[in-house]
Amino acid sequence: MKKISKQAYIADTAIIYDDVEIGEDVIIHDYVVIYPNTVIENGCEIYDHCVLGKLPTSPGVTSRKIKVEFSKLIIGENSILCPGVVLYAGSKIGCNNLLGDFCSIREECMVGNNCIISRNVSVNYNTSIGDYTKIMDNTHITGNMKIGNHVFISVLVATTNDNTMGRIEYNEDHVQGATIGDYVTIGAAANILPCVNIGKNAIIGASALVTRDVPDNKVVMGVPAKVIRDVE
Amino acid sequence: MKKISKQAYIADTAIIYDDVEIGEDVIIHDYVVIYPNTVIENGCEIYDHCVLGKLPTSPGVTSRKIKVEFSKLIIGENSILCPGVVLYAGSKIGCNNLLGDFCSIREECMVGNNCIISRNVSVNYNTSIGDYTKIMDNTHITGNMKIGNHVFISVLVATTNDNTMGRIEYNEDHVQGATIGDYVTIGAAANILPCVNIGKNAIIGASALVTRDVPDNKVVMGVPAKVIRDVE
Amino acid sequence: MKKISKQAYIADTAIIYDDVEIGEDVIIHDYVVIYPNTVIENGCEIYDHCVLGKLPTSPGVTSRKIKVEFSKLIIGENSILCPGVVLYAGSKIGCNNLLGDFCSIREECMVGNNCIISRNVSVNYNTSIGDYTKIMDNTHITGNMKIGNHVFISVLVATTNDNTMGRIEYNEDHVQGATIGDYVTIGAAANILPCVNIGKNAIIGASALVTRDVPDNKVVMGVPAKVIRDVE
Repeated sequence: MKKISKQAYIADTAIIYDDVEIGEDVIIHDYVVIYPNTVIENGCEIYDHCVLGKLPTSPGVTSRKIKVEFSKLIIGENSILCPGVVLYAGSKIGCNNLLGDFCSIREECMVGNNCIISRNVSVNYNTSIGDYTKIMDNTHITGNMKIGNHVFISVLVATTNDNTMGRIEYNEDHVQGATIGDYVTIGAAANILPCVNIGKNAIIGASALVTRDVPDNKVVMGVPAKVIRDVE
Repeated sequence: MKKISKQAYIADTAIIYDDVEIGEDVIIHDYVVIYPNTVIENGCEIYDHCVLGKLPTSPGVTSRKIKVEFSKLIIGENSILCPGVVLYAGSKIGCNNLLGDFCSIREECMVGNNCIISRNVSVNYNTSIGDYTKIMDNTHITGNMKIGNHVFISVLVATTNDNTMGRIEYNEDHVQGATIGDYVTIGAAANILPCVNIGKNAIIGASALVTRDVPDNKVVMGVPAKVIRDVE
Repeated sequence: MKKISKQAYIADTAIIYDDVEIGEDVIIHDYVVIYPNTVIENGCEIYDHCVLGKLPTSPGVTSRKIKVEFSKLIIGENSILCPGVVLYAGSKIGCNNLLGDFCSIREECMVGNNCIISRNVSVNYNTSIGDYTKIMDNTHITGNMKIGNHVFISVLVATTNDNTMGRIEYNEDHVQGATIGDYVTIGAAANILPCVNIGKNAIIGASALVTRDVPDNKVVMGVPAKVIRDVE
């Protein structure tokens, strides 16, 4: 059953499956596809060609088992999705977020409020992102990762969650992305290895390779990254 | 008002808003969306799912103020836009350009003639790119950047424009991308920091981190990059 | 002439050109565009906005000559294409493959069976990829490259095929991507230079710059990469 506000504007070419809720003053542009079990709250704008609520699927090649039941995909009030955004089932996107062209967020992620997730950013499953956090263009955010509030992650940053790189069987015990504290700043093309803990207000230099924990309020640089000074 | 040449071929599924001009022998493929204030000059081919003339929008989370009025988006003669290209309002794309799948160019950029901007390249606002310049796949080009003629920028290159990485308030005085001279060559996965000046005909090695100015005709390599020899 | 199985489900909004074959139990979602000379084998699922069988085109700016005739694009049984995948003419994609959102594969590539090519991965022309190989998000795979079986290539990996970076005229004699042996593992943000040979079961560390051949069963790390130990 669809529950669509009369105060929403929906382009004739948008495809809306059953079991979708769309709030007041929502704008849905052309050629958007919205799969079942999706909620779009008041005031959101969804640009052309977005695909929302897709279930993850696999012909048997993914290491991680794929669930078949998900809670609702929720897109919070006043968020804007630029052309070509893909959001998978069961994620909760907060309010006032800006998602850039072709960013893709996998299933069961949590995104807070007032964030930017920019163009071509790919976010994997089951990752949480706090409030007022910005993730810039062409960056990859891995699965099972925790990113705090007021974090800035620059362009083309790599993050990963499996130190064995698939060489041993998938197991959530060892597959864990980094934990990024509040107010952390990560420079362009940095590379954050699995399981590391980046302390609050730390700064990671451009092109740094972060292989171990970074204390609060420290600046690290280099390949591999070393502490070079305190944050002023 | 639309001004569409009778010598243009436009797929039935293309959505064309008012105030769009389309020249002779233009081909517009399926599911293209063209927003107002867009000019497509003679001989262009626009592949499926492109979105042209989108206004930048924000729910209040972007640091830089967003303008509301823009001059026309112009796509110069004989340019080809591959599937999924997104061009924002007020940019001027020259003639004979090839834009790859899913490349996205923000508002008020200038692109010269005979360029390639390849797949998944994201270009930010107010950047200029000269003639005969090639920018390869998955690279990010920052805002307020100047790129010369006959430049080659390889794949997965990072460029940025804010040394404070958002830690102090946005101000165009300090937010400035690199300046890249004519005939410069930049290797794969290089990282070009804000405000640096790369001299004419310089070569930047693969994976180099460019933290300071590079003289004309020099080869630099390393993290951070150092001059290692003259260009032969 | 179209040859479409009655056991296929095809959305009303899918655009299917002549000379397309679609097998049994295929599902084609909304706004997919399928150009001529494309074969989709039994059991495939093609998600929204995919573009299949596009011919390469250029306004004269590409260094490499573009062919005008191609053999058929074939997508093997039970493969799944996520939203926005673009496949060019003349490639052969095997069975049971998963292609992620917005991945784009150029003309005349060969992909084996049981592979993952993930989101925003761009693959250039005439490259071969073996069976059971995984290429993770936002990575670029160059043209004229050979990738073996059971290979794992992590996120944001750069590969290239021209050591002159376009400074001398295009010639297939010198334009050659790396050769990657079976069971190789390549870490995040690694950079693999042209023509190198990576031996079987080697491991390339995260952020490594691979400038020369890597022997079988060795672990290499660093910028430039050096052998640091045997694979255990």
